[in-house]
Amino acid sequence: MKVTLAHVAAAAGVSVPTVSKVVNGRTDVAAATRSRVEALLAEYKYTTPRRPDRSGLIDLVFTGALNPWTVEIIKGAEKAASSYGHRVTVSVLAGDATQDEWLTRLSASRTDGVILVLTELSPASRVRLAGMHVPVVIVDPVGQPDPRIPSIGAANWAGGLMATEHLIGLGHRRIGTITGRPSLPCSQARVHGYRAGLEHAGIEVDPALVRVGDFQFDSALAAATSMLSRPGRPTAIFAGNDFEAMGVYEAARRHHLKIPDDLSVVGFDDLEMSAWVSPPLTTVAQPLAQMAAAATRMVLEPASGEGSNRIELATSLVVRSSTAPPPARWAAA
Amino acid sequence: MKVTLAHVAAAAGVSVPTVSKVVNGRTDVAAATRSRVEALLAEYKYTTPRRPDRSGLIDLVFTGALNPWTVEIIKGAEKAASSYGHRVTVSVLAGDATQDEWLTRLSASRTDGVILVLTELSPASRVRLAGMHVPVVIVDPVGQPDPRIPSIGAANWAGGLMATEHLIGLGHRRIGTITGRPSLPCSQARVHGYRAGLEHAGIEVDPALVRVGDFQFDSALAAATSMLSRPGRPTAIFAGNDFEAMGVYEAARRHHLKIPDDLSVVGFDDLEMSAWVSPPLTTVAQPLAQMAAAATRMVLEPASGEGSNRIELATSLVVRSSTAPPPARWAAA
Repeated sequence: MKVTLAHVAAAAGVSVPTVSKVVNGRTDVAAATRSRVEALLAEYKYTTPRRPDRSGLIDLVFTGALNPWTVEIIKGAEKAASSYGHRVTVSVLAGDATQDEWLTRLSASRTDGVILVLTELSPASRVRLAGMHVPVVIVDPVGQPDPRIPSIGAANWAGGLMATEHLIGLGHRRIGTITGRPSLPCSQARVHGYRAGLEHAGIEVDPALVRVGDFQFDSALAAATSMLSRPGRPTAIFAGNDFEAMGVYEAARRHHLKIPDDLSVVGFDDLEMSAWVSPPLTTVAQPLAQMAAAATRMVLEPASGEGSNRIELATSLVVRSSTAPPPARWAAA
Repeated sequence: MKVTLAHVAAAAGVSVPTVSKVVNGRTDVAAATRSRVEALLAEYKYTTPRRPDRSGLIDLVFTGALNPWTVEIIKGAEKAASSYGHRVTVSVLAGDATQDEWLTRLSASRTDGVILVLTELSPASRVRLAGMHVPVVIVDPVGQPDPRIPSIGAANWAGGLMATEHLIGLGHRRIGTITGRPSLPCSQARVHGYRAGLEHAGIEVDPALVRVGDFQFDSALAAATSMLSRPGRPTAIFAGNDFEAMGVYEAARRHHLKIPDDLSVVGFDDLEMSAWVSPPLTTVAQPLAQMAAAATRMVLEPASGEGSNRIELATSLVVRSSTAPPPARWAAA
């Protein structure tokens, strides 16, 4: 069995980045820690996976525009990569032509690993990338993920369930949802979590309260506007992500509905700005930076993911000020 | 005089990236355009500045945490760099030790140019970077900028002035402001623009209405809370940036003040999310992506900035729903 930094870190009772620092001869490690780690590295006969032809780069690849969601991913990857002495490149792909250009740039200046975020490569690009023999990890796959490529995600279903249970616990019965991009397994899992929450509580799923979104503000503004204009409007909406929650906020404002008095809203992601909107948003926290850090470790130390090709990190509910019991006339129903 | 892509682009009536594509032998250029550009390249005896030892990388360097503001910069740099066939790396520096590590990674895998964003290098780092003979451009300098290093910014003073004039035009007289990080020339210029706006209108600057912030939500929440708790509270606040505007929104909500009915708010930056907050934010748009794109062109084609070591792009006022005339009792005053 190949010894990884993770083994040494566990044995030394320190973090993987600390072991990495020792391996890379960095000076910012306490002397006692350094000698303990060095002794273990020798005992385990650890051999550095760093090859002289390493580029010192890992590639972070997005599809579609960069936004405050992607920044959390960049943040986590940059931090993890720099603890390994690597720099992170950021590329935005839009269409097959861009994929080709990116692959050309890759082969010119090389990379030590690729992290694809919500990105689906064309079959031709996949073949080309495979030919470069570079480790690839996917964060949040699109469609049916390739089981041979390691992937990282969050407990989306559990998150959808806990958002819905939180609203039911407050007394809501008419709970709407706006989905994310339907082609993404993460969106599908959130809606299934929502449905499960309603079913556990014996509440029938009303198809009029399940609307398709695309993770963007505009789609949620339109969907929420439509739901709030109908007679039996929802008293709470579980949005597919935090951007959608902001679309719901704006739809509520236009309908003169106060959050949370007249309408409760739950988001998903817990972007930094979710604590800054008014009122601060109750949301399902997804550890995006940690997911990116885990992906970075997996591409730089492929052995560390051994045994599992799929990692899911936990989600948790962050209760702020956008959720409350439903208005009295609804609670009575 | 050295011929640059910009000269050829101007002569051909096409964009610089289009000329760059022709130079780099890319296929996604219309045949007629290609032959026109090729003829001009020959006529001008254009010689490509691309050296065989180019890394195909440019380095984008931030100080402090990545956030939705930095993402606009990354977006602009990534787009411009990829039109030149380059990838962009993102690094976050915090302190001299991190600067050293980053410079070590740079010298290991090289770079074709460095863009420093709101970043001040230590004297030792500056010497080390200069020794690498890599073009450097600064976006929004810190403190007293080094006049030998080209820099890019926006018309911050004009932006502060136009935000203030907009509020005065609506009838406001008691206009507060919360500054950005005081060490940044961009923050200082915005406050001076605000003061100029008041002075032009014959309104005395009330020191109690000028508060120091740091461009973060929390600083603005505290400053606005303090201003709104006083008797002669402002009817409008010009925030140092859009994050600060969100802090003002939250302070207003806690004081049961409605925006814009009871309090008008103007931000600065026009981040994507400023159109998504409730109510949508009136703000001074700063072309962050264009500034980053200009910086990218300057590092990749140092000759293109000839004649000027400082470029300022225009700002403009985007009026949305967070500004309105002051409440009647104040307007009467």
